[in-house]
Amino acid sequence: MLAWAVPACDHGGMVDLGLRQVSLVLFDGFELLDATGPLEVFGQVGDRVGVTLVGPRSGPVASSQGIRLMADVAYAGAPAPDIVLVPGGSGTRALAGDRDWLAWLAAWAGPARLVASVCTGAALLAAAGLLDGHRATTNRRAADWVAGLGPGVTWVQDARWVEDGDRWTSAGVSAGLDMALALTATLWGQAAADAAAAAMEYGWMATPCG
Amino acid sequence: MLAWAVPACDHGGMVDLGLRQVSLVLFDGFELLDATGPLEVFGQVGDRVGVTLVGPRSGPVASSQGIRLMADVAYAGAPAPDIVLVPGGSGTRALAGDRDWLAWLAAWAGPARLVASVCTGAALLAAAGLLDGHRATTNRRAADWVAGLGPGVTWVQDARWVEDGDRWTSAGVSAGLDMALALTATLWGQAAADAAAAAMEYGWMATPCG
Repeated sequence: MLAWAVPACDHGGMVDLGLRQVSLVLFDGFELLDATGPLEVFGQVGDRVGVTLVGPRSGPVASSQGIRLMADVAYAGAPAPDIVLVPGGSGTRALAGDRDWLAWLAAWAGPARLVASVCTGAALLAAAGLLDGHRATTNRRAADWVAGLGPGVTWVQDARWVEDGDRWTSAGVSAGLDMALALTATLWGQAAADAAAAAMEYGWMATPCG
Repeated sequence: MLAWAVPACDHGGMVDLGLRQVSLVLFDGFELLDATGPLEVFGQVGDRVGVTLVGPRSGPVASSQGIRLMADVAYAGAPAPDIVLVPGGSGTRALAGDRDWLAWLAAWAGPARLVASVCTGAALLAAAGLLDGHRATTNRRAADWVAGLGPGVTWVQDARWVEDGDRWTSAGVSAGLDMALALTATLWGQAAADAAAAAMEYGWMATPCG
């Protein structure tokens, strides 16, 4: 059992307002809502954001639930990313030990403007070294496993999500919705985030410590 | 503007516990979270539920957001359904006036054990006559349009979802998560629904009137 930091509830105020591109990383056994919750939020933002689904191959990639999303492009051909989002899911268990894949993730995602994860997606960021020196959180139930992959990370317990500069991480599954709304507020303004939550009829947990 | 009934907050107590099959109806321009929210919930139930995605063709079907889910089977070849779930989305505008498609939906879904919709999916159920004589709800912003398609329906305003026998309908987008959890409680017991919400770290709005 690793020591956990006290919650850090600061929330960045930067507003970008520009056109952004989100690259979502799919893999066999991703958790469906970890991916589609944030994608629904970004879909509400309209033409200020583009989304690319990156997978082991272009074509269908199966979630833990067996539901298949279509990847637009394979890892090997993925363009340099702007914003990277990594979901969790049962598939993280194998990938967290796959050194070749982690090396690809570190090299590809490292230079991105912002790297984010939902749930046990933080295991992959941690194992790739992408969270070293940062504060981060993850699914509560998998917390000890994930924390063991990132000894150089300050793990924050009981946060709904954690913003630490260019590394954002959320707690389990549905927390990705709240983080994506906060990211929307940061990138395109509070009004855009409020409008997205209203259109989704969603009771946004709008503070990082929920 | 149609008259709206007062909210009806009754919640059925029937528990089935059996193996159930959910057929989710995809169409071009479905709303991503309307579909994937309930699918995430059912995915938490494990091997007591199977899911079939039914679409205009087997293969990729694009959401309003451009994200593509893979349909398992085409409408024409879809097996007789057990539980039907119809999402909303911008694509409902065209389908609500497509008499051939509505005739297929009425004939195929009518005999099912339970027919449910999320958001403006209720427009399609209403236009197919599947809600006649029932209480139902829908997305608040589209309420007048949807209600106009179902003059024989008792529309319930300000409900998170409405259960009326074998017809269940939810409010907009994220309300599908809450309805799916309630359906899980009805079919597989309260403990199964509580476990699903906990695994998703989701703050379930567990009463129909929210």
